[in-house]
Amino acid sequence: MLIDRLAVIGVGLIGGSLARALRRAKVCGSVIGCNRNRETMEMAVKLGVIDEFSTEVTEAVKGADVVVLATPLGTTESLLASMAGALRNDAIVTDVGSVKGYVVEAARRTLGGHLPRFVPGHPIAGTEESGVEASFADLFKSHLVILTPLPETNAVALEKITGMWRITGANVIHLDVKHHDEVLAATSHLPHMLAYALVDCLAGMQERDEIFRFAAGGFADFTRIASSSPEMWHDICFSNREQLLSVLERFDDHIALIKAAIRESDSATLHDIFTRAKAARDKFTDQRSAHLHGSG
Amino acid sequence: MLIDRLAVIGVGLIGGSLARALRRAKVCGSVIGCNRNRETMEMAVKLGVIDEFSTEVTEAVKGADVVVLATPLGTTESLLASMAGALRNDAIVTDVGSVKGYVVEAARRTLGGHLPRFVPGHPIAGTEESGVEASFADLFKSHLVILTPLPETNAVALEKITGMWRITGANVIHLDVKHHDEVLAATSHLPHMLAYALVDCLAGMQERDEIFRFAAGGFADFTRIASSSPEMWHDICFSNREQLLSVLERFDDHIALIKAAIRESDSATLHDIFTRAKAARDKFTDQRSAHLHGSG
Repeated sequence: MLIDRLAVIGVGLIGGSLARALRRAKVCGSVIGCNRNRETMEMAVKLGVIDEFSTEVTEAVKGADVVVLATPLGTTESLLASMAGALRNDAIVTDVGSVKGYVVEAARRTLGGHLPRFVPGHPIAGTEESGVEASFADLFKSHLVILTPLPETNAVALEKITGMWRITGANVIHLDVKHHDEVLAATSHLPHMLAYALVDCLAGMQERDEIFRFAAGGFADFTRIASSSPEMWHDICFSNREQLLSVLERFDDHIALIKAAIRESDSATLHDIFTRAKAARDKFTDQRSAHLHGSG
Repeated sequence: MLIDRLAVIGVGLIGGSLARALRRAKVCGSVIGCNRNRETMEMAVKLGVIDEFSTEVTEAVKGADVVVLATPLGTTESLLASMAGALRNDAIVTDVGSVKGYVVEAARRTLGGHLPRFVPGHPIAGTEESGVEASFADLFKSHLVILTPLPETNAVALEKITGMWRITGANVIHLDVKHHDEVLAATSHLPHMLAYALVDCLAGMQERDEIFRFAAGGFADFTRIASSSPEMWHDICFSNREQLLSVLERFDDHIALIKAAIRESDSATLHDIFTRAKAARDKFTDQRSAHLHGSG
């Protein structure tokens, strides 16, 4: 058994899908889930996502050799603090938070002697759905999982968590904490802000009802991520504040360029921006398609 | 026959799909296509999209009772001017341009006595693909087609073009020209600007190659429209300049709100924006889904 007893703290889309994938692969002796909501946990047992549950994190981690924290970012520090005293001496702890600098600071403040066996992680997967009902074993298949080990991270712990994610079908890479947060601010956090801002902007217009009626498929795709969990994104914004503000400034500069070009009939600039963007987007699509089909 | 001889000027994704839908429905005596590129036209005949072609617009419209202009917006005025003298006296002319104010001005300057039989139109359909190879007969099925008749538009002409689009499976509505341009600036032109700006912004970053590597499905959906034709969007920007600048300003205000909330740890504001946006997006999805399945 790769894992004797797995504790999943927060059995939602991500935690639930990880538990499903590992149970399907039969690499866990048992899986215990932990959520404050008892009904959610009963549902998770019924769905076959976990074997048993506790609503107390100190109970849930007891005896677990691997603990996965998969709750909203804002709860990270208090949950790590709660579990620290109840962990097995050799327990490996990992998480799935979207902002690693924030999680690592919380871990440094709370985990004490357990810190070398803490492996910060972030699966780049998800849908705009949330909750254990939306979880499925193939969520991570062919997706990227980024681990951001610390200088003091134990090599065995890192190897174990890397192996755990590989079993889900994910491609696992290791990255520096700060680098992760910069890149994710640009590719994930910024687009979410833009989608939320656009939809809220339109919803505030006088013609709001017909406006949405006239929106086409492009609009549906563009705004899909605005259906993501407000709580989750609220936490991410504050956890990655500096990096996010920095890419928002950079984006503003680009919008200012486009506005100036439209206002001044600067045909060449507009054409250059659109052409560069199309080329980059087309290249992204080709790479992604090659990657998802296993040849890249 | 609804149409004896249909002339499609510009046989790309939109013009080609319309021709396919009407031929499939057997409501046209014959379909003549017009493109400057002879190879494209030979391909269109081979694909069964048109019966015959001419590379000269004055030739193509000769004898046609319905003429559909489906070329990039920037070519509208010169093509209307070219065809005006060659049109049958009773020919009905329509177009598919994304900005109606611009097209209507061009028509007023060029069509003379034909103006009452000009029906400005805009099918809200398309993909990021372009060209006749991408055309298909079901492109407009369950999609909206907006016609923006003028005060002087002939009722019979309006009825004929409304009927033509209904045959493709589209839902046809009539709207005021200015109103159309305001709504489309918000739901279509603005999102395209944001997608282009985002992709170009990321492509200009130092980490550009890995940045795209780390992007997930949400990013792929969000930026799909940045793969649209740069030429087409260049034309749209200048054709709908005032409305587009106006919604860009409105959007900037929303981004400024979000930035201030992040900077000042204003949790309530951020939460409100995200929650309102999610509610509006979810409602949009429900309505769209009901609509596409024919119950709305």
